[in-house]
Amino acid sequence: MVDHLFLRACRREPVSRTPIWMMRQAGRYLPAYRAVRERASFLDLCRTPELACEVTLQPIDEFGFDAAILFSDILITLPPMGIEVTFPESGPKIGNPVRDQAAIDKLVVPDPDLALPYTLEAIKQIKAALHDRVPLIGFAGAPLTMLTYAVEGGGSKDYARTKKLLYGAPASAHALLDKLAQTCATFLEAQIAAGVDCVQIFDSWGGIVSPGDFREYPLRYAKQVIAQIKSSRAYAAKPVPIIYFVNGCAPYLTDYASSGADVLGVDWRVGIDVVRRSVGDGVALQGNLDPGALFASPTEIRARVSDILERAGKTGHIFNLGHGVLPETDPEHVRAMVTAVRELSSSE
Amino acid sequence: MVDHLFLRACRREPVSRTPIWMMRQAGRYLPAYRAVRERASFLDLCRTPELACEVTLQPIDEFGFDAAILFSDILITLPPMGIEVTFPESGPKIGNPVRDQAAIDKLVVPDPDLALPYTLEAIKQIKAALHDRVPLIGFAGAPLTMLTYAVEGGGSKDYARTKKLLYGAPASAHALLDKLAQTCATFLEAQIAAGVDCVQIFDSWGGIVSPGDFREYPLRYAKQVIAQIKSSRAYAAKPVPIIYFVNGCAPYLTDYASSGADVLGVDWRVGIDVVRRSVGDGVALQGNLDPGALFASPTEIRARVSDILERAGKTGHIFNLGHGVLPETDPEHVRAMVTAVRELSSSE
Repeated sequence: MVDHLFLRACRREPVSRTPIWMMRQAGRYLPAYRAVRERASFLDLCRTPELACEVTLQPIDEFGFDAAILFSDILITLPPMGIEVTFPESGPKIGNPVRDQAAIDKLVVPDPDLALPYTLEAIKQIKAALHDRVPLIGFAGAPLTMLTYAVEGGGSKDYARTKKLLYGAPASAHALLDKLAQTCATFLEAQIAAGVDCVQIFDSWGGIVSPGDFREYPLRYAKQVIAQIKSSRAYAAKPVPIIYFVNGCAPYLTDYASSGADVLGVDWRVGIDVVRRSVGDGVALQGNLDPGALFASPTEIRARVSDILERAGKTGHIFNLGHGVLPETDPEHVRAMVTAVRELSSSE
Repeated sequence: MVDHLFLRACRREPVSRTPIWMMRQAGRYLPAYRAVRERASFLDLCRTPELACEVTLQPIDEFGFDAAILFSDILITLPPMGIEVTFPESGPKIGNPVRDQAAIDKLVVPDPDLALPYTLEAIKQIKAALHDRVPLIGFAGAPLTMLTYAVEGGGSKDYARTKKLLYGAPASAHALLDKLAQTCATFLEAQIAAGVDCVQIFDSWGGIVSPGDFREYPLRYAKQVIAQIKSSRAYAAKPVPIIYFVNGCAPYLTDYASSGADVLGVDWRVGIDVVRRSVGDGVALQGNLDPGALFASPTEIRARVSDILERAGKTGHIFNLGHGVLPETDPEHVRAMVTAVRELSSSE
């Protein structure tokens, strides 16, 4: 494989400039994506390799991002576990929320080769279509984040049901998290075997707990996932970088550094220089422009990019948003961000 | 006035034990509150002094909290500004969201004596009914938090419209925040004049921005509110402690300390000892048990209370939840928390 900028940055090797990709870069802000979505539902898109391949490549062609990310959804593993999901416009809905030990006992850890063949086939098609232009990132939802969806039945404002399970029935919570961790790790191993060059574990709701509970729940099971991946045959054959992303990581930085991941995702609420000082030099960092900052003028976007590049330094930094790009974003503002990262990090 | 425990802690004076109250302590988790709500809508409750007085006193009678907080809602100031609000079960809804300069220009800064007389009358009735048993806290929504409701039209997952205004039209955002700050300060001055012994400024959504934007938006306008209150005649006549509460404060601690408030609220996602080390000894701290931790067993609740008391120290600490109590909470678990705080902080 070519020695890609993105993979060099993941390994903290010297780079000619800072690589950039964007969470949800294949998504609704892109007219080309919306055109495909007019022909297919969101789930059809996730489950049809040709369509998933098409939309995965769109932002690479359009903006020249330094990595592609598989088009899929973190909730894609729930149906094969035994949890029904639909995707109405208002956000994902779970048909049979998991709220007691009996429901947890019924869940299975699916074999991705049998249960998620379309995702693995999409990876093969994307890799072939990319011709190694840029690396391909695979991903899955982290155990705690998957638990919140399974338990709440969708999004939540206060995560009351999640906390009722975590603190009111901790043995059940741990049993569920263990199944979710096995599912996450097994799926990512299969993605590595299918050809991805990096995997990201999304803990979108890992930041809803106290520091002690961060160690006990999200971090503990992210560590279990990372350890299982690292001891797998797929990883032995292809030891890809592992990214762990906790949205709202600021209160947990010292513990965050101990996850075992090669790269830590950083949301926009904290200075990336603060994170670097706290986690040390053993990991790369990915982030951390506020997705909402793309509503600013191109001049202001460039100033904010410059500030982040300066705080992050050139080694071991992958530029990204601090969370997924917002659907209302103007693609030309995305272009302004990409151009700013390329120009400003080259000239350093 | 009696030298109340709560007020002594706000001023960082020595206390015999740590005082405790609870955000949303007059609320749906309490059977007595739900009984009143069967007779009146939420807005009727806010706007009928006798009923507001009744529910304000319920948790004092039931649990012996060390402070009462006026029963009202942060959105109560929006209708007199010119923004329609309703309170369906699914959460507050704004009839005419404010999204451009023309809409901002139309908003007025209401005179609380004319526009919010029921709140000021409720304060007088509550003060009379309390007979100085415990101090009464007044409150209002902080400018940035009020902006998010006015702009989004209700709750939000990603605050895309808020950020479109803040970063895409900063001059309009500042104009709106200035009106909201004047409204907040003027209302709190009127509450002080009506008799409250302390005021809290709620910045529930102050934690959705980057550290630079925290200084530029939520903190800047909270400072404006605090400065306006401190220069008012009401405050000169009765210089009550001012509490500023930012939900998700962890990334901004150094700046948070500069707000001018006497007490800083601390949510549950960060260790209160970490906050103390960062903000220094010039302010009192209020917090910070995870509201979801009240789903745990009484034994576990006691252990968590003990941990927080130890981290916070006895001087300048007001025990509270890190956000409002969840409606699904068992009142007996609230009692377990109150008992633990009383016993464990007395024995130190």
